[in-house]
Amino acid sequence: MKLTILGCYAATPRTLTNPTSQVLEIKNHLFLIDCGEGTQVQLRKQRIKFSRINHIFISHLHGDHFFGLPGLVSTCRLLGRDKELNIYGPKGIKEAITLLLKLGDSWTNYPLRFHELSSKESMLILEDEKITVETIPLDHRVYTNGFLFKEKLGERKLNVEATRHYEIDKAFFNNIKKGKDIVTEMGEIISNSELSFDPPKPKSYAFCSDTMYNPKIISLIKEVDGLYHEATFLESEAHLAKKTKHSTAKEAAHIAKEASVGKLILGHYSTRYTSIELFKKEALEVFEKVELADDGKIFEF
Amino acid sequence: MKLTILGCYAATPRTLTNPTSQVLEIKNHLFLIDCGEGTQVQLRKQRIKFSRINHIFISHLHGDHFFGLPGLVSTCRLLGRDKELNIYGPKGIKEAITLLLKLGDSWTNYPLRFHELSSKESMLILEDEKITVETIPLDHRVYTNGFLFKEKLGERKLNVEATRHYEIDKAFFNNIKKGKDIVTEMGEIISNSELSFDPPKPKSYAFCSDTMYNPKIISLIKEVDGLYHEATFLESEAHLAKKTKHSTAKEAAHIAKEASVGKLILGHYSTRYTSIELFKKEALEVFEKVELADDGKIFEF
Repeated sequence: MKLTILGCYAATPRTLTNPTSQVLEIKNHLFLIDCGEGTQVQLRKQRIKFSRINHIFISHLHGDHFFGLPGLVSTCRLLGRDKELNIYGPKGIKEAITLLLKLGDSWTNYPLRFHELSSKESMLILEDEKITVETIPLDHRVYTNGFLFKEKLGERKLNVEATRHYEIDKAFFNNIKKGKDIVTEMGEIISNSELSFDPPKPKSYAFCSDTMYNPKIISLIKEVDGLYHEATFLESEAHLAKKTKHSTAKEAAHIAKEASVGKLILGHYSTRYTSIELFKKEALEVFEKVELADDGKIFEF
Repeated sequence: MKLTILGCYAATPRTLTNPTSQVLEIKNHLFLIDCGEGTQVQLRKQRIKFSRINHIFISHLHGDHFFGLPGLVSTCRLLGRDKELNIYGPKGIKEAITLLLKLGDSWTNYPLRFHELSSKESMLILEDEKITVETIPLDHRVYTNGFLFKEKLGERKLNVEATRHYEIDKAFFNNIKKGKDIVTEMGEIISNSELSFDPPKPKSYAFCSDTMYNPKIISLIKEVDGLYHEATFLESEAHLAKKTKHSTAKEAAHIAKEASVGKLILGHYSTRYTSIELFKKEALEVFEKVELADDGKIFEF
């Protein structure tokens, strides 16, 4: 699982910082999470092909999280896209994008499929053989979801030595990987656990932005390998965090600690601070595995 | 008059080039013309204060000319703007911006005034003591206007030497500047032409993008000091220009020549070309005063 931060600053695009957008590579998918203004340019800088993105997840309809989307949708048309593009986001997102394309008389010539969200409960919104994506209801000024990306438990790994020892025909290998016991020609049962190893632990990643401190999410994100949690403010501005329904670095760290996550990645920094190192310092007082998101930075889980 | 090009490339924002946006400084106004994605960052790079922009002119509702507007409007709110912001653009622009702000529950706390355009005739859309702004109906795939910015004829310049010679009291200076003759205490009439000089010739600038070759605009832009005319293609792609209702560099030069403009500035280059110098070369075969727009470039008239 590879996470590329395209933008991780709050509010407005600036000369050297970008509003929220990131790309998660998971089991051959390239998922785009949020799409602030400038996302197209950031994708190009990272040499990520637009055509590889088939699913876009939008947390909420504040501009710094989706004003790059109309342009991206239009550019995909200009690039000759023909594959379906799926957009998951709050109710209203379809009307917004549709209106902008209609005004320009430039409807896409590829299928654009909207999955509008309005539930206040966590929902499974995408599933295939290898992954699931669920919503994480957040608590912000407008209706907002985080997203939980999980690999499914893979096939068991063949114990090649054991299969040789028992002289098992290759024809049985698929069944062994699926966890089945084997019955030999002599009628002897060989337990699957002798013939295979446990598959690697599936990885998981949770994106939680924007939100105020919300302990209800802890059960949903328990033990994820990576948690991106917004930290718009430091504790010295806790009153602003409360007023604008954002979190402080310390609050993000408390969530990470209670959820026993593998790694906390902080982001969505207010542009009032001159150094983001202060966010790490504050979070480290509560939880030890803290990293700072920054535009262009890559995390691997 | 000072023109700052923020972006002058067609279609999509890229790592090193920006879609259409420019700022015209004229008689203490700072007018923003078009607002492609990335305009905010380009304004910051040029150190142009958002608060100095009170009027934004949008030619048409294709994304590369206005997808930066929702973000700019939102940022003005975050920056604490309280002055009115005027937006001139095709009918539909109000609905689009209003919907996006409504979805984010983030209406501006400053007055946002839309001036929606739908006339196919040239119209006076802004006037004050020193300038006028008129629309230039263009011919593109969707309803599009160019904009003609004109200084008004200023006051006459006082001939200081002559006023001394005739011993004219300062109290009369304002009337002299307004072109009036002076009657001395002895009843003698001194002609204004003896006491003042002609004011400087008022400057004018025309923005014409996007449009196919359209000779109807020539009478409107006759003898402007600066003409920005789109040249999306070279003559080798004239068939594409015709199909997409854009112009070639040669066609832009023909318009400039027929209108006897002071300077032709080419822009809105298709990103298919690796060098924009070819546009200049092609236009120079028809008209001698050709310049190339480029992001960050400044022109003075």
